[in-house]
Amino acid sequence: MRSFMDGDYLLGGPSAHKLFYDYAQGMPIFDYHCHLPVKEILEDRHYSSITDLWLGGDHYKWRAMRAAGIDEKYITGDGDPREKFRMWARVTEKLIGNALYHWCHLELSRYFGIDEPLCEESADRIYDKCGEMLAKEEFGARELLRRMNVKALCTTDDPADDLAMHAKLREMDIGFKVLPTFRPDKAMWPDKPGYAEYIGKLGEANGISIRSIDDLTKALGTAMDRFQAAGCILSDHGMSVLAYTREQSRAEEIFGRALAGEQVSEEEAGIFASRIFDYITAEYVKRGWAMQLHLGVIRNNNPKLWEMIGPDCGADSIGPVSDPVKLSLFFSTLEKENRLPRTVLYCLNPADNPVLAGMAGNFGGGSIPGRVQFGAAWWFNDTLEGIRRQLDECINAGLIGYFTGMLTDSRSFSAFTRHEYFRRILCSRLGEAIDRGEYPAEKIDTIGRMVQDICFNNAARFFGLSE
Amino acid sequence: MRSFMDGDYLLGGPSAHKLFYDYAQGMPIFDYHCHLPVKEILEDRHYSSITDLWLGGDHYKWRAMRAAGIDEKYITGDGDPREKFRMWARVTEKLIGNALYHWCHLELSRYFGIDEPLCEESADRIYDKCGEMLAKEEFGARELLRRMNVKALCTTDDPADDLAMHAKLREMDIGFKVLPTFRPDKAMWPDKPGYAEYIGKLGEANGISIRSIDDLTKALGTAMDRFQAAGCILSDHGMSVLAYTREQSRAEEIFGRALAGEQVSEEEAGIFASRIFDYITAEYVKRGWAMQLHLGVIRNNNPKLWEMIGPDCGADSIGPVSDPVKLSLFFSTLEKENRLPRTVLYCLNPADNPVLAGMAGNFGGGSIPGRVQFGAAWWFNDTLEGIRRQLDECINAGLIGYFTGMLTDSRSFSAFTRHEYFRRILCSRLGEAIDRGEYPAEKIDTIGRMVQDICFNNAARFFGLSE
Amino acid sequence: MRSFMDGDYLLGGPSAHKLFYDYAQGMPIFDYHCHLPVKEILEDRHYSSITDLWLGGDHYKWRAMRAAGIDEKYITGDGDPREKFRMWARVTEKLIGNALYHWCHLELSRYFGIDEPLCEESADRIYDKCGEMLAKEEFGARELLRRMNVKALCTTDDPADDLAMHAKLREMDIGFKVLPTFRPDKAMWPDKPGYAEYIGKLGEANGISIRSIDDLTKALGTAMDRFQAAGCILSDHGMSVLAYTREQSRAEEIFGRALAGEQVSEEEAGIFASRIFDYITAEYVKRGWAMQLHLGVIRNNNPKLWEMIGPDCGADSIGPVSDPVKLSLFFSTLEKENRLPRTVLYCLNPADNPVLAGMAGNFGGGSIPGRVQFGAAWWFNDTLEGIRRQLDECINAGLIGYFTGMLTDSRSFSAFTRHEYFRRILCSRLGEAIDRGEYPAEKIDTIGRMVQDICFNNAARFFGLSE
Repeated sequence: MRSFMDGDYLLGGPSAHKLFYDYAQGMPIFDYHCHLPVKEILEDRHYSSITDLWLGGDHYKWRAMRAAGIDEKYITGDGDPREKFRMWARVTEKLIGNALYHWCHLELSRYFGIDEPLCEESADRIYDKCGEMLAKEEFGARELLRRMNVKALCTTDDPADDLAMHAKLREMDIGFKVLPTFRPDKAMWPDKPGYAEYIGKLGEANGISIRSIDDLTKALGTAMDRFQAAGCILSDHGMSVLAYTREQSRAEEIFGRALAGEQVSEEEAGIFASRIFDYITAEYVKRGWAMQLHLGVIRNNNPKLWEMIGPDCGADSIGPVSDPVKLSLFFSTLEKENRLPRTVLYCLNPADNPVLAGMAGNFGGGSIPGRVQFGAAWWFNDTLEGIRRQLDECINAGLIGYFTGMLTDSRSFSAFTRHEYFRRILCSRLGEAIDRGEYPAEKIDTIGRMVQDICFNNAARFFGLSE
Repeated sequence: MRSFMDGDYLLGGPSAHKLFYDYAQGMPIFDYHCHLPVKEILEDRHYSSITDLWLGGDHYKWRAMRAAGIDEKYITGDGDPREKFRMWARVTEKLIGNALYHWCHLELSRYFGIDEPLCEESADRIYDKCGEMLAKEEFGARELLRRMNVKALCTTDDPADDLAMHAKLREMDIGFKVLPTFRPDKAMWPDKPGYAEYIGKLGEANGISIRSIDDLTKALGTAMDRFQAAGCILSDHGMSVLAYTREQSRAEEIFGRALAGEQVSEEEAGIFASRIFDYITAEYVKRGWAMQLHLGVIRNNNPKLWEMIGPDCGADSIGPVSDPVKLSLFFSTLEKENRLPRTVLYCLNPADNPVLAGMAGNFGGGSIPGRVQFGAAWWFNDTLEGIRRQLDECINAGLIGYFTGMLTDSRSFSAFTRHEYFRRILCSRLGEAIDRGEYPAEKIDTIGRMVQDICFNNAARFFGLSE
Repeated sequence: MRSFMDGDYLLGGPSAHKLFYDYAQGMPIFDYHCHLPVKEILEDRHYSSITDLWLGGDHYKWRAMRAAGIDEKYITGDGDPREKFRMWARVTEKLIGNALYHWCHLELSRYFGIDEPLCEESADRIYDKCGEMLAKEEFGARELLRRMNVKALCTTDDPADDLAMHAKLREMDIGFKVLPTFRPDKAMWPDKPGYAEYIGKLGEANGISIRSIDDLTKALGTAMDRFQAAGCILSDHGMSVLAYTREQSRAEEIFGRALAGEQVSEEEAGIFASRIFDYITAEYVKRGWAMQLHLGVIRNNNPKLWEMIGPDCGADSIGPVSDPVKLSLFFSTLEKENRLPRTVLYCLNPADNPVLAGMAGNFGGGSIPGRVQFGAAWWFNDTLEGIRRQLDECINAGLIGYFTGMLTDSRSFSAFTRHEYFRRILCSRLGEAIDRGEYPAEKIDTIGRMVQDICFNNAARFFGLSE
């Protein structure tokens, strides 16, 4: 029986201990997929309270609070910040085993030096202590990142963005790199509300009036040039299912109708998106960008919360598994036509794990280690069990040595302890195999160096992070 | 290495031990979903032998015996009861790790004080000892329930039932409550054989001749009034998939054809059922009833057993996973139209676990802790691994603190040791997290009280069990 | 902390140790499903090097090497054998936890007496030592099998094969039996390229010109007679999904079009295959043959590797889960019409595990223990976790006592240590339950005998292996 969050926290034995402390702990962080607002980095945002930092935008916590039956006033409403934090503390007590419990206590410990458990009784003390620290000049967004040894991070950006803030940041010496990620979702799915209006904006931002697919791809090309100039090295796509098809003859017509403000069907959107994928993947290859695919989410399931709060309010859900036949068609077409970029595949439905890991294994080679990756445990899977399951798949599919590792996928500046969370679980998983005699203990250095690769080096190489 | 079923049976460490013995063990049972025949409670049924009690209707055991190649004569046939029990004992020996092995030995120990393992050699001794005890006057159905500290249970009942036996039971002092559950499946799925005939019966039982959907909802409304008067606080729905749709314009026509004895398709049945769901969920909200949804079963797969034995013969199977998009449509529509009852979602296909737990998390709030629940491990999942998986999902989705906990779902009066089974697994899962240092050991009382909530208090509050 | 691959390798405690050493280890092997080339047994093939033995045809290893970014020259290309082995050694180092790591080291230890870990540094030493041993006269294909105590194995054969090599082998005394398996896939799926040509070959091999389904079934019947004469006791079918249908009226027309060289659709192929299944299952029952169904693979996903190497190049993938409704229709129809053979169901998508184990449990009885089996962890599931998951399903479904156990499914003569791998995991899984007090330790002999059944006896009885 061990004490709460002692040195062996999440580490399952002596080899895990050695792997974490001798190899993993000191590695820098390259957070290659997050949603940090670049504006807040530029302005070096300060937080008025731990409520501001923790509950301002974290829909993971909001869900947990709603599950507890807390009034929305104390979640996203106008409740007093201290009261909100008390509510959160009360909810936290029951989150044994939940990632939020782990994350909160890692953040209190690593950012604020607070090691007492958060509960109703300690809430006020912790609120005050965090408040004092956050009030200090040096406790801004950038310092929070530097404290975690962040070397680089990739924000998530729209092709219609002007990237002006990224440009300013590049001129400053803040101790870490901030790179944009090209995420053209809004341009690709014409069944979504506001599509025509968005295309107008996209055209404007890229100096072209978009009336055809040809215009659209020109605009996207210009945007990619701008992103590249701003340091972009990877793209990102999110979708509920990858409905790739080769029968794209209706694409132009579908686009035309969408531009005219007509509603197109989900199937039609898939046809159009297939056409854009054909263009865009060739561009990624040409530019040497990696591609991320986030599969299987159903967003905005709760109409009341949607009306009250809008998107990203904590009402998103796990969608269907992928169709392995469609996945195969997509990747085999790209491979055949020499436009398969280095790719990272993420899924929200964990029943997809073996399918994606298996599909990734079909497209190795080309002298690129881990050419198609099965990506880190995403969102609802970003838990102790979820991370272990993802690592198991990587191990069993033979992909673990080249795995690009963890990312926060977060909007929060205090989320970077999740890298420690991941590293401890990783070291534990591998160390336990050594302790059980499944790998020679005298060769632990080989595994240690592999751990360091997974912590940082693989991602830096795979995505092409310049020194 | 521990002895068979010692005090730490299924408990993984010191915290688990403390949680079970100091908190869980003494809690009463509210078995809010079972299939006990109310008639047998009313008549305080006695059993002629352990074969009568165990093999009379338990299709879990029947399946295990068939897998062993036992002749049907000794399963559901006219074999001698002692011979049948010997066969069962022989099968039991090989059921290491199977829930039936755990259940049988818990039942022998807790009901009969028999602690020797059941096997071919011990079969006759155990048969005789159980027989002696069952022959005693006090060893009837009710005493079996009282021994397990059952405070209340909900049977499963049809809207065409007159609930006369429930009424009689309410006038008696038997030491625990027996409440009916409203399960209108037979009224909702017009593609099932005998539908028109059933609707006739339903109309008769509720004093109306049913010729339209309007008539049908009136009959169901009357039935709900009767159920409510009999103490009903929750409903139950079973289906293979939740095929909810908003396009219900053909519902009346489909109903008409079904009443005329025509076969309607599965898809048409779904349209009609959607219409009834729209009516009935509003009624549940109005009455303050909770709703249970049992998703993903394919019944009666073996035509020879069907002919020989009929339904519930041990030939039911795990169906497809749910369509998350349909699930989302169902719940978001209910939420939008203010007719989302407190809900418990059960699935048979464990690949559905993350989807259902995630969907539940979208509909928290409304000041009701655990407003939409991911329900206890059901049927084929009611195993050591299955229960752990369900608890993992509840923990990872942040729902564990409000989880309404275990239910037997059983036709057997000796099944109530399954609550102990569940409680030990629950305490083990949570205690292990404490022992590993993932939760502060000094706050074990918080978790202990949470365990007590999961054992009884949450269900009593959630379903509204009156004192 | 234990040393690498010590005596307790993969064994989780004292009961596991006892089960493995006192019961499992000494059991012979009946490898009832493999892909060993009968020609190489007949010729007692010798290997020029460990590269020849290990990398000549093992697409598991090829995938792992491609994931590592190794040039194809050193995988399937014309690279120097020693260089290839060095590359493989380098890849091996990072395969901690992967089945290939376990398999390789078991093979080095059990076949070659080499106990040092394979890595870049040891590669040359190991290459040389293996080379010396393989050069010895007695180190041929047959001796490799005899060393592993193989009593019998079933190759996988086409109805167009003449089985001449099997006939020759039957006349020789090689110390173990080699039986053919009837695998009529090429005759059943008319949507596959080269179908018409294959049917011509099939007709020729079986003395009939095939112009109708009737001709085809006659040819298959003749082939089955020939197979039976050659000792065949089981069949095998592989498919991506079991799309069984009762509506087969178009089958003859579809067959006609396929014979004429027209492309038929996947759906049409399913209709035709359903018709053949109806014929062939009746034949299996008549002949007392068991049937194997391998479900859920998508083959040849990588067009470049396909062009370069052809099939079985390491670009196969996990397909969709089965449709449980179709599965139910298939089995219930067979059962109803008295043509359900003893069956083993394998799935590639592990989300199918519970569905298949549950479906198997519907068709027990008939005095045949384990009449419908949920088969051993297949291909991508043939890993530590995958085998444990499969065993869990067997245990939870009550099927473990009659489980026919492991098979290599391999093209490699050194793959037979996988039986030891499986046996250790099996003994560990069962032994741990005993150590935890979930089964009486004093009855370990019952479980030990069950383990022996699973290792050999069950398969011998189930498939009807004659003494």
